[in-house]
Amino acid sequence: MNEEQLNDTDDLQERLREVESLLARYRQSLVAALDPESSQPAQDAAQNTALTAQILNDLRVRLDAMHPADVAYALEALPLEERLLVWDMVRAERDGEILLEVSDAVRETLIDAMERHELVAATESLDTDELADLVPDLPQEVVEDVFQALPPEEQAQLRAAISYPEGTVGALMDFDMVTVREDVTLEVVLRYLRRFDELPEHTDKIFVIDRDERLEGVLTLESLLTHDPDSDVRAAMKKDVVRFQPEDKAEEAAQAFERYDLVSAPVVDAENRVVGRLTLVAVVDFIREESEAEQLANAGLREEEDIFASVWDSVKNRWAWLAVNLVTAFIASRVIGVFETSIEKLVALAALMPIVAGIGGNSGNQTVTMIVRAIAMGQVKPDATRRLLKKELGVALINGTLWGGLLGALAWWLYESISLGLVMTAAMTLNLLLAAFAGVGIPMLRQRLGADPAIGGSVMITALTDSGGFFIFLGLATLFLM
Amino acid sequence: MNEEQLNDTDDLQERLREVESLLARYRQSLVAALDPESSQPAQDAAQNTALTAQILNDLRVRLDAMHPADVAYALEALPLEERLLVWDMVRAERDGEILLEVSDAVRETLIDAMERHELVAATESLDTDELADLVPDLPQEVVEDVFQALPPEEQAQLRAAISYPEGTVGALMDFDMVTVREDVTLEVVLRYLRRFDELPEHTDKIFVIDRDERLEGVLTLESLLTHDPDSDVRAAMKKDVVRFQPEDKAEEAAQAFERYDLVSAPVVDAENRVVGRLTLVAVVDFIREESEAEQLANAGLREEEDIFASVWDSVKNRWAWLAVNLVTAFIASRVIGVFETSIEKLVALAALMPIVAGIGGNSGNQTVTMIVRAIAMGQVKPDATRRLLKKELGVALINGTLWGGLLGALAWWLYESISLGLVMTAAMTLNLLLAAFAGVGIPMLRQRLGADPAIGGSVMITALTDSGGFFIFLGLATLFLM
Repeated sequence: MNEEQLNDTDDLQERLREVESLLARYRQSLVAALDPESSQPAQDAAQNTALTAQILNDLRVRLDAMHPADVAYALEALPLEERLLVWDMVRAERDGEILLEVSDAVRETLIDAMERHELVAATESLDTDELADLVPDLPQEVVEDVFQALPPEEQAQLRAAISYPEGTVGALMDFDMVTVREDVTLEVVLRYLRRFDELPEHTDKIFVIDRDERLEGVLTLESLLTHDPDSDVRAAMKKDVVRFQPEDKAEEAAQAFERYDLVSAPVVDAENRVVGRLTLVAVVDFIREESEAEQLANAGLREEEDIFASVWDSVKNRWAWLAVNLVTAFIASRVIGVFETSIEKLVALAALMPIVAGIGGNSGNQTVTMIVRAIAMGQVKPDATRRLLKKELGVALINGTLWGGLLGALAWWLYESISLGLVMTAAMTLNLLLAAFAGVGIPMLRQRLGADPAIGGSVMITALTDSGGFFIFLGLATLFLM
Repeated sequence: MNEEQLNDTDDLQERLREVESLLARYRQSLVAALDPESSQPAQDAAQNTALTAQILNDLRVRLDAMHPADVAYALEALPLEERLLVWDMVRAERDGEILLEVSDAVRETLIDAMERHELVAATESLDTDELADLVPDLPQEVVEDVFQALPPEEQAQLRAAISYPEGTVGALMDFDMVTVREDVTLEVVLRYLRRFDELPEHTDKIFVIDRDERLEGVLTLESLLTHDPDSDVRAAMKKDVVRFQPEDKAEEAAQAFERYDLVSAPVVDAENRVVGRLTLVAVVDFIREESEAEQLANAGLREEEDIFASVWDSVKNRWAWLAVNLVTAFIASRVIGVFETSIEKLVALAALMPIVAGIGGNSGNQTVTMIVRAIAMGQVKPDATRRLLKKELGVALINGTLWGGLLGALAWWLYESISLGLVMTAAMTLNLLLAAFAGVGIPMLRQRLGADPAIGGSVMITALTDSGGFFIFLGLATLFLM
């Protein structure tokens, strides 16, 4: 692979532009060939065909010189038709590594366009852990073909890798570990490594195992290089090793990687036998995907959208969230409906009520975000609920007095009614207190019930502070102003 | 440093519990010593003092055995008083590395509790790039002392590191690079490395430079280990190297690290001279901080909160967002105020109007999130605006027909007025179209103006769809129903 131009993002955009300009020239040549107006002589037509072939060949050469991740980037940035044309121009033996790099949505469009035998061929260049990432997206019959073609040892690895649920260390680990025994000298290790054409990517340490494959320690390449070659592995290795089990949560492993600045770590089974390896590169992919999934979920998108997806695909990706929000909005609307007589008598209530609901939602979301983050960092023990609640209620009381007082004064001035102003202030304060209660309570409760505290908190709190805000404000107004 | 127990998160919680139980015993012994009820003989008091000293010593030993990141974790999880007690028990020479690990909010509390000479001493064990991270949080006079104590070369490095703004490669890079010349043999390199006590952390490649310190290529430890020791560096090195400049955006470097699966990369100046090194570990820290800052900003928190911060600190952290939202809510309230006569005549409008506003906000936020992500991935060129707009308007039209139709039917059924139902459907559809326009337009416009498209989009779109939704619905109702 030619990596001549791997310099920076500008180059990446440059390479994308080259691909696009080749595609534009291709389109022109097609149009010229098909144009019924230009009654071109046969000779011109032949020239045109030759030109088209030449352009496609240029495109192929260009793609060959690009890093698989850059080809993936170009595929994602192109509309469907041109994407499939470029995909056709990619050499078949690179299909596998590129499929690994593209986003899920784009991967689907590429796989849909491939024949069964092409897909089987594409997987041949992949490692077992890479295969495991691809398997969920492949048609069933392709998976069977691929599986049959593997040697028994890799069949077992693939079966194991698929068996671990998403979000576990097992689903992220690879099987590219180099292992040595502790009773050899470093010189022997150096000779052993020299027999490799290349070491597995991201090898920063070698795993030291006993005769039963149990992990004894790790030998970092650094120790290997700085110690006397005549010394034993035993003398150069580190025995106190951060290790993971395949069942461990990937999120916790990611935190450990950050906390201890790891580049790779061994994965062992319950008997301390080495079964795989977790690398920082895999962890980074996980972190990125995790934080993207969270961002998308926060905005109510089920998954990342191919920006060239059809309108219908987008509607499907978004409808569930809109439905949930419409239901909560409808409930809030019914709460208002109960107080219609009061609003008829004092129409100012209609204008002021969204302010009460709004501040509750905003403040509640701040609390939820803070608590969810603290839970994720492991800094909130269940017995902390009372202390956190006390603090959040204090914040709510201050905000209620300040902002509630200000808005109450505005209401007084606008509608020339001091009692309306007082009801406004009281309602805002009460809704802020409700938001603080729910903001602490909802994530803590979800954690205690074993659910992910990060999910759905925002929808629930907004639903509560909307309906609650309308109820508190209109209820107080009905009691004291009617 | 004893790393006996670096295994996983359960152990981390275990270590935290040990620290906490020592603190609890310490408190008990203090209470026993100070209890005026127990008229204890002097002998008991002396025993108690000895016990207290013993407990503090146990705590000191326990902390000594912990990884700096774990001490930082414990400090973050403790209330202020106990945090400062533990901080006192940490050996002074470890203060620096622990200050680097704690969150900004907690770092502030620790630095506030330290004397000038303690702070200067704490920085002595740090590398220049680590110092640069700490400098913004240190009092001015400490910074001056620290700077004076550095050798001239490190003064220059520190000055350079501080000069790069946050979010650039320069602010993330370190100066721990190992360099060799291309005309030596690998055997010479191996001997050279053996002279190091330890290599800089996360060294996966050695930078190959010419006599003017210009980057010629990189020699990965892997090639060093798998090539014949008698061959030249020139033969084993890779010439096509992903390199960065200190001025490059950290976000783009992070994308390149992910795209090309890098563990470290050279940083060069405009003349291609090696000036530093960027590691994946630093990039991961950056990614995490970036995504956390985004999460916090989305919820309207200015910065991460120490969960033990005072109520006032929390109020200050959150007030700006609440103020902005109250202003937009107030504007929306005034829009409603304009239509008070209509609401008085048909109070159903008050109950239905939050639904119209709500669906616009939700749908607009989905669009903004999608567009902002696509812009961040570099997949949206300015000329794509029209195509994206067409798609989003299509999605809005479908959602308007479906959900607007459904809610219109509900309104018809609830209030027995088909014309009210039709106004509801029309208003929801129009507000969804407005949301689509703004959802595409706001981030694209911000990008074209050179602003960060990710910031503030959500507030702006919600403000627009709230006021817009009320205006459209109440306006249509006034036109057609009054």
